[in-house]
Amino acid sequence: MSVPGGAAALRSRLQRARAAMQAAGCDVMMLSLGADLPWVSGYEAMPLERLTMLVVGATEEQGAVLFVPELEAPRVVPQPGVFSVRPWAEHEGPVALVAELAARLVPASGGTPRVAVSDRAWSTFLLALQRLLPGWEWTVSSEVCAPLRAVKDEAEVDALARASAAADRVARALLGGEISLVGRPERDVSAEIAARLLEEGHQRVNFAIVGSGPNSASPHHEAGDRVIRAGEPVVCDFGGTLDGYCSDITRTVFTGEPEAELRRIYEVVAEAQRAGVEAARVGSPCQEVDRAARRVIDSAGFGRYFVHRTGHGIGLEEHEDPYMVEGNSAPLVPGNAFSVEPGIYVPGRYGVRIEDLVVATAAGPRPLNVADHSLVVLGP
Amino acid sequence: MSVPGGAAALRSRLQRARAAMQAAGCDVMMLSLGADLPWVSGYEAMPLERLTMLVVGATEEQGAVLFVPELEAPRVVPQPGVFSVRPWAEHEGPVALVAELAARLVPASGGTPRVAVSDRAWSTFLLALQRLLPGWEWTVSSEVCAPLRAVKDEAEVDALARASAAADRVARALLGGEISLVGRPERDVSAEIAARLLEEGHQRVNFAIVGSGPNSASPHHEAGDRVIRAGEPVVCDFGGTLDGYCSDITRTVFTGEPEAELRRIYEVVAEAQRAGVEAARVGSPCQEVDRAARRVIDSAGFGRYFVHRTGHGIGLEEHEDPYMVEGNSAPLVPGNAFSVEPGIYVPGRYGVRIEDLVVATAAGPRPLNVADHSLVVLGP
Repeated sequence: MSVPGGAAALRSRLQRARAAMQAAGCDVMMLSLGADLPWVSGYEAMPLERLTMLVVGATEEQGAVLFVPELEAPRVVPQPGVFSVRPWAEHEGPVALVAELAARLVPASGGTPRVAVSDRAWSTFLLALQRLLPGWEWTVSSEVCAPLRAVKDEAEVDALARASAAADRVARALLGGEISLVGRPERDVSAEIAARLLEEGHQRVNFAIVGSGPNSASPHHEAGDRVIRAGEPVVCDFGGTLDGYCSDITRTVFTGEPEAELRRIYEVVAEAQRAGVEAARVGSPCQEVDRAARRVIDSAGFGRYFVHRTGHGIGLEEHEDPYMVEGNSAPLVPGNAFSVEPGIYVPGRYGVRIEDLVVATAAGPRPLNVADHSLVVLGP
Repeated sequence: MSVPGGAAALRSRLQRARAAMQAAGCDVMMLSLGADLPWVSGYEAMPLERLTMLVVGATEEQGAVLFVPELEAPRVVPQPGVFSVRPWAEHEGPVALVAELAARLVPASGGTPRVAVSDRAWSTFLLALQRLLPGWEWTVSSEVCAPLRAVKDEAEVDALARASAAADRVARALLGGEISLVGRPERDVSAEIAARLLEEGHQRVNFAIVGSGPNSASPHHEAGDRVIRAGEPVVCDFGGTLDGYCSDITRTVFTGEPEAELRRIYEVVAEAQRAGVEAARVGSPCQEVDRAARRVIDSAGFGRYFVHRTGHGIGLEEHEDPYMVEGNSAPLVPGNAFSVEPGIYVPGRYGVRIEDLVVATAAGPRPLNVADHSLVVLGP
């Protein structure tokens, strides 16, 4: 993948990650699936049964070694001064290679070795490593990397903005009636949205939820065979990856005039979304974004139908720190990027969600999505 | 997802899994990401930070409970007699809920509790569970499920055959020159192959490798911006999921007459592929498939350029047991389904791979792919 800022950005990230390792008392970091690996190396592991793992020592002198299956080694873009590459052949045991190097990185002076492993690394590899390194203390690499990754630099915000602009173009096509809905199975509309995300510049589609009629009440509905009818709400929540960074937007449209209660729900969600964005001020606790949106929905009497948190951080991963959720009292800092996406879901009947991405800046919340929030009724 | 055989098939699988748990001394099984969960439940976990986990007791009376995020609960298709559903709300801790239930499933009579967790479950969840259940012995659920899943029943072989037939139709379009190559970036050809996989009936595209010219020497090449030229080999390796089961096929085509050595390499790979299929006899060790293919390539003098095993099992997952690799002496049994995909890769120059899926049957190896293996030169 291309990295905004190039090798210099990677070296700076690795330097900050090492400082965080030392602060957390971590002797070794083992990065595999998930975004911590591409964040420090520019290389993304394939989600397959052959182990890819970057072993990082806590000091620059100890360096970092990327263990990669020999047949995938040609995919690796070398990053001088960041890591060296150790391809492993089919007859070798990659877990043993990782464990041997890790053991050499631990200071002889004693104490329980502490190692941070990718949050999304497969359990099969973690269990095998634990067997070879008994008595070690294990934690997740997000303890080291998440606070760093949660603060996007200028080039990263730029990449997120480009991804969001591409998603906005698809959202505008939806709102403008270019994507026909009535009479088509949700699955087909989802496929069209996915194709448009690619056409607009995404390299990868991460999801394209299309929930029509009663399915709009299922927040993570999987687009299926249901044929969209006239007079329904259609929740469309989609995103992809563009130059490594994610987009994520939700718009709810109507294939006919909504009844009074549904219209009211739409207005409440739109107002809750505005309130959430408005609350996203540097220095405010993350949970304040959730509370601001929830207050609007609660006071309109729909509180029990808002069954999820208000938002999630976004960057190299679709969902990452910081989360806009009750209990997260960490203050927003400039460069935090996250979704604000309240919803109301009346089981079996209908649902509405509106979502934009937002960056916290010293000058106030900066929405990355600008596609319209007005209630849109599309003709057949 | 739809399950060949329906709820009755799920109940039979769970019954066999419980017998295997008892044989392995497992008190509890915890299924999350990966295919063991859909294999016994018909439900696939979303690969996100909210935990989905099926907790299975070792006896039928203990039952099985699916912990699922409340907002995803509407996605679950109930399977009476298989599992019950416990949606968890945003303010609840799903890991604690899982640990509490697991502790109740362990016999009071003592001994170290033994639990099998999904191979692909995220490390962040495993580490959190290990903290709440100290002293427990952990293993991977493939220890329980892989030997069962490796033997496909008739309905599963049928599903694999349908997926392969769909992939074959795309391969024929490629071999017939319907997919234009010369002058297009690899990325565009990959997107067209992906779109055709969907058109032919796949619900999901898993990968569409397009490696042209020197990129054909990178077995897991990611299709990129390189523009395909005349007079090159193009390795196309693609597959998707159709009704839950995976396809996977590779063909190498030429955009101009290959030079003598490259033509020779193609013939050697084609012969190695035939030899591998021919060796896939019930009762033969899996490694014999690898050896048969490798012997052909070795004796032609290209052994050092064949850098991967000959094949992998396939089913609900793209790669699963049994693996056709040196060291796997397990004998093939009827219903084993796997790829046979030797290749020769001369770094920086060119590569060739040919792959079909095969099922071991009492009547001999049954190839699921039948698209032609002849060397095809496509015009501009």
